[in-house]
Amino acid sequence: MRDFLPADKARRERVLAVIRERYRAHGFDEIETPVMEDYDRLHAGLGGDNEKLSFNVLRRGLDADAIHAAADDPAALTDLGLRYDLTVPLARFYATHRADLPTVFRAIQAAPVWRAERPQKGRYRQFVQCDIDIIGDASARAEAELVIATLDALDALGLQGGMVRINDRRALDAMLDGFGFAPAERPGVLITIDKLDKIGPDGVAAELRERGASAAAVDAFDAFLRSWTPRDELSYGEQQIRAALPDGIPDEIVAHLVAVGATVAAARPGGGAPLEFDPFLVRGMGYYTGTIFELAHPSVPYSLAGGGRYDGMIGRFLGREVPAVGFSIGFERIIDLVAAHEADAAPAVVLVHDRDVPLDELLVLKAAFVAEGSRVRLEQRTKNVKALLERAAADGYSSFATVVAGTQRERLELKRLR
Amino acid sequence: MRDFLPADKARRERVLAVIRERYRAHGFDEIETPVMEDYDRLHAGLGGDNEKLSFNVLRRGLDADAIHAAADDPAALTDLGLRYDLTVPLARFYATHRADLPTVFRAIQAAPVWRAERPQKGRYRQFVQCDIDIIGDASARAEAELVIATLDALDALGLQGGMVRINDRRALDAMLDGFGFAPAERPGVLITIDKLDKIGPDGVAAELRERGASAAAVDAFDAFLRSWTPRDELSYGEQQIRAALPDGIPDEIVAHLVAVGATVAAARPGGGAPLEFDPFLVRGMGYYTGTIFELAHPSVPYSLAGGGRYDGMIGRFLGREVPAVGFSIGFERIIDLVAAHEADAAPAVVLVHDRDVPLDELLVLKAAFVAEGSRVRLEQRTKNVKALLERAAADGYSSFATVVAGTQRERLELKRLR
Repeated sequence: MRDFLPADKARRERVLAVIRERYRAHGFDEIETPVMEDYDRLHAGLGGDNEKLSFNVLRRGLDADAIHAAADDPAALTDLGLRYDLTVPLARFYATHRADLPTVFRAIQAAPVWRAERPQKGRYRQFVQCDIDIIGDASARAEAELVIATLDALDALGLQGGMVRINDRRALDAMLDGFGFAPAERPGVLITIDKLDKIGPDGVAAELRERGASAAAVDAFDAFLRSWTPRDELSYGEQQIRAALPDGIPDEIVAHLVAVGATVAAARPGGGAPLEFDPFLVRGMGYYTGTIFELAHPSVPYSLAGGGRYDGMIGRFLGREVPAVGFSIGFERIIDLVAAHEADAAPAVVLVHDRDVPLDELLVLKAAFVAEGSRVRLEQRTKNVKALLERAAADGYSSFATVVAGTQRERLELKRLR
Repeated sequence: MRDFLPADKARRERVLAVIRERYRAHGFDEIETPVMEDYDRLHAGLGGDNEKLSFNVLRRGLDADAIHAAADDPAALTDLGLRYDLTVPLARFYATHRADLPTVFRAIQAAPVWRAERPQKGRYRQFVQCDIDIIGDASARAEAELVIATLDALDALGLQGGMVRINDRRALDAMLDGFGFAPAERPGVLITIDKLDKIGPDGVAAELRERGASAAAVDAFDAFLRSWTPRDELSYGEQQIRAALPDGIPDEIVAHLVAVGATVAAARPGGGAPLEFDPFLVRGMGYYTGTIFELAHPSVPYSLAGGGRYDGMIGRFLGREVPAVGFSIGFERIIDLVAAHEADAAPAVVLVHDRDVPLDELLVLKAAFVAEGSRVRLEQRTKNVKALLERAAADGYSSFATVVAGTQRERLELKRLR
């Protein structure tokens, strides 16, 4: 878990403000849920491996007997946990408040989540996710709105050139059925296919055999994988999708994927949908029920955003099925890609003063600059004025002036800091 | 703990943005710390009663033996806790990062804290605090900057007319010594004096006697209390402060209080310091070492902000004393006082469409409005269009148009929503 110093914090808030503003423009509304949810809700099987990584909160008022009794059932020690994602809380939120929300609800959540990961480079135990979700729309419009808004947000941050890889869990399932994998084998097979980018077709076939998956099915899949070549990424349509899939994939799945692409292409400024159909895209979470997608960017080898349809989850909390689909920007992954320094629009001045300037004179000067619309920092002169000014420049200050006793605002001469 | 729906969330974010912008103008910089701190740090005696209210996080990987062993020492079950205030984390932050911070560090923190309070009206287990703190300045300039910035932030929110009540813990201590209370009696006596507003002078004297405080000291204090009358709130200066105190208060304490007032008065636009010296102001936290203050507002019977000097706390983490003073706005207390509805500056349009409008036409229209700088929400027509439009108006949408198949942007007629 990290502290954020002023320059970092300001940069994070600027990037979040751009994302929020773009998402709001596209008709999404921000909501907020408490950081803690009921333990049982966080451990209902919807969080996948993340459930094991949750930080759980000790029950208040446990006595010695209760603690002894919990030795065989540690879950009895806890009643709340810190959320490990924003999707489970959103489903609970929607189930609670649906009467007060639009029929089609477009939510923004930009907030921290927590996972007790082992410390390693680039992984944090507290990190921010930026999710948009559309609840109550089963049509391809929902996917298209998510993709358009996310691409727009990244464009606004200077991250043009993103490419959305897209697939459908039902197509994956139908494909695996067609090759002869048993339904019970599917989760394990998907875990292996998810590694295709890293271990290649040979690695996938070998790992499937190691898993003891049905030999004939592995052979059939292996043959298909070897025959498959990625298509031209800018030609996305029914023909390309059909060509990339084995036979027997239901028409409505292909039609939904085609509709997403056509809608994105029609609405994007300049036309053209930066979409790529990827029949081997898996996405880790078990709750996906249809379209899945992730956003790749030429500057990095990992995805910057990911999401998909999870039509079953709201029903777990609400008791009736409601379609839902979401797209989540990995905020910690993009923050380092965004241009490091962005000058504040407002002028910001450092007043460097001698020790003997009376307090009221200092604050009268400060008030004069604040009234003019400047940010103002007072700094008593130190031996190393240069270091002091460099720090101020890093915090976004643009000019400075030297103040001695008796100085009036009109006589202060501002000098540029950078 | 509460969920925030779109209209509430938008209002909270607008109010936070105003506070942050004003604080930044006054030279404060925002920082962020993780929501969890080490258990030992949260329970080092700096959090007062709040330590008992902390939510503690269960250690990961506890086995049955460790749980049995913890029955006699429940703290062994936990290693982290959710912060109950922003002051203890700030002190830890400063001790960690002081080499990278300005000599006089002016911090903004606007973030949630957690306390396991019993549920009651107006108390929340997760709530936001907006703190500004100045670390590294022992002079009255620090208090003056805090008071000026906080009054400015409240002004910007339309909460003019605030009044800062001010006192000094050292003056309180000297006063109690003078009346003959023993140092060991002081904490209990202060708790009783803190109730003066609620129970009146008779109640205070009665409670002090019940506590078994030194009878002669209670009599002397009671006599002083009865002789005391609040001063004209707009006359704040050495004469008034001296008149409000018994004899024997050290000069430097009075001089510091006077300097705060003179500096605030000089720098406030229009002059005049909305300060009131209150010799019976206590403030709950045990860590205060000097000036203490709270902000009263004519619209409510409780204070909207409070703070004080805590020169000893940084030293607990750093090993050398560093002066520090902070002022905290009770965000949940002001959010309901701020004008409820504030139109968004940007235009926002709802496109109400028939079921049969093709998806790509809808998203082309949406993209056209986004490109014009509007927020856009797509809504399929329902039987109750009125309810749909009212909800959109509540979420800040300003106009709507009806879309049928084949509609072009140029032919859409926008109607005002409110």
